[in-house]
This record gives sequence, structure tokens and C-alpha cells, in this order.
Amino acid sequence: MIFYYAPKTVSVAAHIALEEAGASYEARRIDFASTEQRSDNYLKINPKGRVPALVTSEGVVTEMPAILVYIAQLYPERKLAPLNNAFQFAKMQEFNCYLCATVHVAHAHKVRGARWVDDPAAIEAMKKKVPQTMNDCFQLIEDGMLQTPWVLGATYSMADIYLYTIAQWLEGDGVDINKFPHVADHSRRMHQNTSVQKVLALHKAPA
Amino acid sequence: MIFYYAPKTVSVAAHIALEEAGASYEARRIDFASTEQRSDNYLKINPKGRVPALVTSEGVVTEMPAILVYIAQLYPERKLAPLNNAFQFAKMQEFNCYLCATVHVAHAHKVRGARWVDDPAAIEAMKKKVPQTMNDCFQLIEDGMLQTPWVLGATYSMADIYLYTIAQWLEGDGVDINKFPHVADHSRRMHQNTSVQKVLALHKAPA
Repeated sequence: MIFYYAPKTVSVAAHIALEEAGASYEARRIDFASTEQRSDNYLKINPKGRVPALVTSEGVVTEMPAILVYIAQLYPERKLAPLNNAFQFAKMQEFNCYLCATVHVAHAHKVRGARWVDDPAAIEAMKKKVPQTMNDCFQLIEDGMLQTPWVLGATYSMADIYLYTIAQWLEGDGVDINKFPHVADHSRRMHQNTSVQKVLALHKAPA
Repeated sequence: MIFYYAPKTVSVAAHIALEEAGASYEARRIDFASTEQRSDNYLKINPKGRVPALVTSEGVVTEMPAILVYIAQLYPERKLAPLNNAFQFAKMQEFNCYLCATVHVAHAHKVRGARWVDDPAAIEAMKKKVPQTMNDCFQLIEDGMLQTPWVLGATYSMADIYLYTIAQWLEGDGVDINKFPHVADHSRRMHQNTSVQKVLALHKAPA
């Protein structure tokens, strides 16, 4: 498989997942500084012009919740998703979709406001609300969506990798993670994971 | 199961899915006019204050891509998802997540702008871009994400139900569905489905 990513974006989550699965893959960096994600070559891989994209022998998979489940299904022995329990699987999917469609979207209003509005003053106005929306999202996560020790309770899953990735955005969004003790503790534990450490080093390295 | 919905919202998709599955469920309407979705009673069911929510014997499931897969897994004999093909399942999930996190979000900037900004002028500015963003989303769907005759090609799935539901929003968003011949044809075929007709009638009925 070929894994297209950009450093320090949400693709961190899929990258950690590939490492946790022990997957065989080649990682290829997309350079956002030169908007390579909108280049003709990359748009042939992902017409949406976003990362990550996972190129498999059968075709390309995009969208984080889809990629995470796909990796979990390719390597079932790693037990990265509750594949044999429909309700627990639904709860993992529910959590991943909340991160994808609500939390990531709230965050994106800080630097990607032009996706939804043209007026420069409106783009500035959007930025102001990001600390509040991210705070509200993480309050819901803290108040019950995140069980302990893992998102699904006793069972570690892809939802933990995805939560860890997005929780690292809080500081830049003007929200103190320590307002959310369960989230902060979860991030500290995830941070000790060797797959997490390996991927963070890769994403920090120069191109 | 108890299915909480609000008429003519995205909950139409889960409602059609329950009918297509032949599921045993009780449908309960949430009254958006009186903001019942923010009432203490409903927030106990779904702390996010959104519809739909599916209450099962094991707990509550929210988020459309999660609900659709859960229903497909509960009634595998109805073949509403490619449960035994990891790549095809990933493509269905990818499509559902695109609808949830990009298309639905683009649409929401028309009437739910206050989620992301406080300034009234910015909320008005957001509304202006909705025809363009919805057009761009559906151009991508038309240009390849939607295969024929169904989203996944030969195999009908939950992605078809979800696409049909959101495609019905185009007219209200100022976009002519006939600009997208494959999408328009897909909607015409879905519209003849008896589950679709049953749910549309229920959602049109007075409370």
C-alpha cells in the first residue's frame, strides 16, 4: 500500500494506525507549502485534494473513519476495532464520525474558513469562535463519550488513535487540554505508545 | 429499538434504512419548532442535541454513518452493506463520511451558521457561498464517486439511501439537480422505492 500524508495534519491518525497494525506500506509526503494536494498528479489519486489517501491493490481509500476501519479489517489479529460486536463497532464509528464531521470541522474554521465563506471579515469572525467550539466539543468528550481507560472502555481501538491526534490541536486552538482531565490523561498514555513516537518523529523530520 | 427523528432532516436516511432492513422499531418525532432537541429529556438520550438517535437494548447509537452500518449488521440478510468485502465496505464508508463531514456541513452553513460564528454579517456571508459549495460537492459525486447504477456500482447499499436523502436538499440550496445527470437519475430511481415513499409520507404528515 502507498500512504499519502502531510506532516502534522489529521493524517497522523492513519499513520499511527498503520504502525499499530504492523502494516506493510510506503509513506509518501505531500507538500502543502507548494499546494501539492491540488496538483494534477495528486488529484488523480484523490480528486478531493485532501490527505490522507491510502492506495491499495484494489483502489484508493480516503476519509479517516473509512481508512481506520479498513486497516483494522486488514489486520484483524491486531484487534484495533471491535469487528465482532455490532454495538461496540457502532460506538467506535459514532466516535470517529463525531471527530470527523464535528470536531475536525470546528477546528478547520480557524485556517480553512475560505471553504465556507468568501468575505475576509467573515473569515476573521470564524476564527474567533474556534476556542469556544473546540471547548464545547471536548467538554462532551470529557463528560462521557470518552470512557476509561479507552474511548470504548476496556477495549483499545482506532478511536483512541484518532482522539489522541485531534486532542493535540487544542493548544493551537487556544484551549487548555488540562480543563479535561480524562482527555489529558488519555493523551499522556497514548503519547507513550511506540507507534505514536515513531510517527511524531517522522512528521517532525525535514522533507 | 426506538428511533428519534425530526421531519425532513437527515434523519430521513436512517428512517429509510430501518424500513429497507425490515427492522422492528418505534419512531418518535422530535419537535424542532419548540427546540425539543435541546430539552433535558432529549439531551439524556443524545447529549449532542441532534437527530437521529437510535436507542437499542445495549445503548444509544448516533451519527449517520454509524447508524447505517449498525442497521446493515443487524439485518445482514437484507444485504444493505458489503459486510464481507473490506475494500467495498471501505468505499461505502468513504462515501458516507464524505456526505456526513463535507456535504452535510456545506449545507449546514445555510441555516446553522451560528454553530461556527457569532457575527450576524458573517452568518449572512456564509449563506451566499452554499450554492457554490454544494455544487462543487455534487460535481465530485457526479464525476466518479457515484458509479452506476448505484454508488458502489452493481451493489445497492446504505450509501444510496444517504445520497438520495442529501440530494433532495439541492433545490433548497439553489442548485439544479439536473446539472448532474447521474445524480438526478439515481434520485428518480430511489424515489420509486416503496420504503422511500413510506418515509416521505410519514415526514410530510402533521405531528
